[in-house]
Amino acid sequence: MTKNHEEHVGILHGGGGVYMHKFIKEHILPNFRSRRRFIEIPLKLLADSAVIEEIAFTTDSYTVKPIFFPGGDIGSLSVSGTINDLAVIGSEPIAISCALVIEEGFPLSKLDRILKSMDTAAEEAGVEIITGDTKVIQRGKLDELIINTAGIGKRNKLLDENLKHVSRDGRSLKSRWLDPRNIRPGDKIIVSGPIGEHAIAVMVARGELGLEISGIKSDAAPLNGLMSKALEVGGVVAAKDPTRGGVASLLNEWNETTGIGMIIYEEKIPVSDEVQTASEILGIDPLELANEGKVVLAVTAESAEEVLSALRSDPLGREAEIVGEFTADFDGVVVKTEIGGLRYLPMPIGDPVPRIC
Amino acid sequence: MTKNHEEHVGILHGGGGVYMHKFIKEHILPNFRSRRRFIEIPLKLLADSAVIEEIAFTTDSYTVKPIFFPGGDIGSLSVSGTINDLAVIGSEPIAISCALVIEEGFPLSKLDRILKSMDTAAEEAGVEIITGDTKVIQRGKLDELIINTAGIGKRNKLLDENLKHVSRDGRSLKSRWLDPRNIRPGDKIIVSGPIGEHAIAVMVARGELGLEISGIKSDAAPLNGLMSKALEVGGVVAAKDPTRGGVASLLNEWNETTGIGMIIYEEKIPVSDEVQTASEILGIDPLELANEGKVVLAVTAESAEEVLSALRSDPLGREAEIVGEFTADFDGVVVKTEIGGLRYLPMPIGDPVPRIC
Repeated sequence: MTKNHEEHVGILHGGGGVYMHKFIKEHILPNFRSRRRFIEIPLKLLADSAVIEEIAFTTDSYTVKPIFFPGGDIGSLSVSGTINDLAVIGSEPIAISCALVIEEGFPLSKLDRILKSMDTAAEEAGVEIITGDTKVIQRGKLDELIINTAGIGKRNKLLDENLKHVSRDGRSLKSRWLDPRNIRPGDKIIVSGPIGEHAIAVMVARGELGLEISGIKSDAAPLNGLMSKALEVGGVVAAKDPTRGGVASLLNEWNETTGIGMIIYEEKIPVSDEVQTASEILGIDPLELANEGKVVLAVTAESAEEVLSALRSDPLGREAEIVGEFTADFDGVVVKTEIGGLRYLPMPIGDPVPRIC
Repeated sequence: MTKNHEEHVGILHGGGGVYMHKFIKEHILPNFRSRRRFIEIPLKLLADSAVIEEIAFTTDSYTVKPIFFPGGDIGSLSVSGTINDLAVIGSEPIAISCALVIEEGFPLSKLDRILKSMDTAAEEAGVEIITGDTKVIQRGKLDELIINTAGIGKRNKLLDENLKHVSRDGRSLKSRWLDPRNIRPGDKIIVSGPIGEHAIAVMVARGELGLEISGIKSDAAPLNGLMSKALEVGGVVAAKDPTRGGVASLLNEWNETTGIGMIIYEEKIPVSDEVQTASEILGIDPLELANEGKVVLAVTAESAEEVLSALRSDPLGREAEIVGEFTADFDGVVVKTEIGGLRYLPMPIGDPVPRIC
């Protein structure tokens, strides 16, 4: 990359990969000092949600382009995404906020449609939209609409019992939440369903693909119900939703946090024929594509099959698979390809698709 | 207004006045349905923060232009504003989020300066920035930078004792928080210091005034410490920070919520000479100008003088004044002018200055 990338913010700084992580470590974390207060899951862990005084707290700004796409819109996305960030650390989302920044001249009919989508997703997840803000920016100074949703959650009542299952093997827990710091070699990796659908649906809606693919819809959906089904079984060690940078970014983050390698069996990774076809044409690895209604779980070997069954009993987890496991045999994320070879799965440079969420 | 304003979002819909309130009532509230859960301060009250399960929760997106101005920048503003929204309902802010949406090509040196300002304001307020998000938008599709900060707070320990003072006169409280629904005729209105400084500072920085005014700085500052000083005295009924639409919008909102009229003594309203001069030249009422480091309090008559003294003991409240009182004699917000006349102070159409915060 040229020197320019050092001195100015570039598209890749928001892309969920190597550049974004470097940007956060060099510019966000050093500027935001930690203070006296004890924070159970602090900023520096870069978890999906922070936890302070038993309150889970998260935020996301949504800049997806186009704002309407097959399977959803910026409204449903903004609610689902934030609920999922709360759910994957083991909290039960209770409320979210809605901060709109709107370009002058934006049609009110479209805005109503988007707000209704937010309400529908909130209804589905059983959370309330309880606070908000509205700003309007002059025409031409913003591309339609940005929505920020922050969310708060309380400790899921199932979490303590779930973690008892985790520590049955004698491991000492570094955190009382779902947290990759609790992962140990042998833990299984579960993906809750077919990957890459959100990214491909948005790309198709943009008309950028130069190809027609029918039947692909964004998977945007709130996963707090699905997470509770897994927690009810017990043995869930960590969870994360593979958004920007996809499963590849997620697994590399876990690798960095844990220092433990993993092996992923390519044949086990759920991918629809449509996403597979589109990915091949585009030369993109589906593992790097963003999802908005999927979760990756680290589960104890003992509980993995039972958690898998619980996930599959839910419409949002019907095609879940155990795709691999943590292992001391490797130091990085290794994929066993369908023809039996081994390859490292690197941290993506950045999401191949800008403004995917 | 033309029909166009009905069908498209206009600048005034974000301006904090008549149009924004109409917009919120016609588009936001009907789309976001309330559900089963009990919410102590729900969305429909349009309070500065919502309260659910004893957690205060608020959000604001900051779009101020220019991003640096005398006395602050978008960073200090974004932290102070959200802390103030938490503080004025009687909560103690504990944490805030930082969601950045950045235009591609934005200089990293400026970003670092802004993030440091956020950190400094957070330090001053004793809160932690614990979670965040970063998105980057293509060059030309955003005007530099938008920051959203959401915040969470816990019930201020001084609040129960403060409300005991409020109910000494036998009134029954409609809410356990600082809440205009608890206001009764006779309650005094206090403004914590000179008004309009933020708006004029931003206008001067924009070079839009066509006049040179030196010495005006934005008042952006976190007010949680000042609020606690007032609560320690007791008798504070309600509080709100006069941002978009200024004190005029705030008092009209309280009038609408309470149904109680009020009289404001113009000579008591603290305004600096510089703001007064600029307002006269521009033909703007200082009461309509945005503030970012001021609070308006409704206080029982019994406690008003003592609360005033407590505010004045703090550098941020040194020039506080009792500016008027709630009264059954009027149905709206009435200003007694310096020459002794009476005039209604209407709800502003919208902030005279767009992108002020």
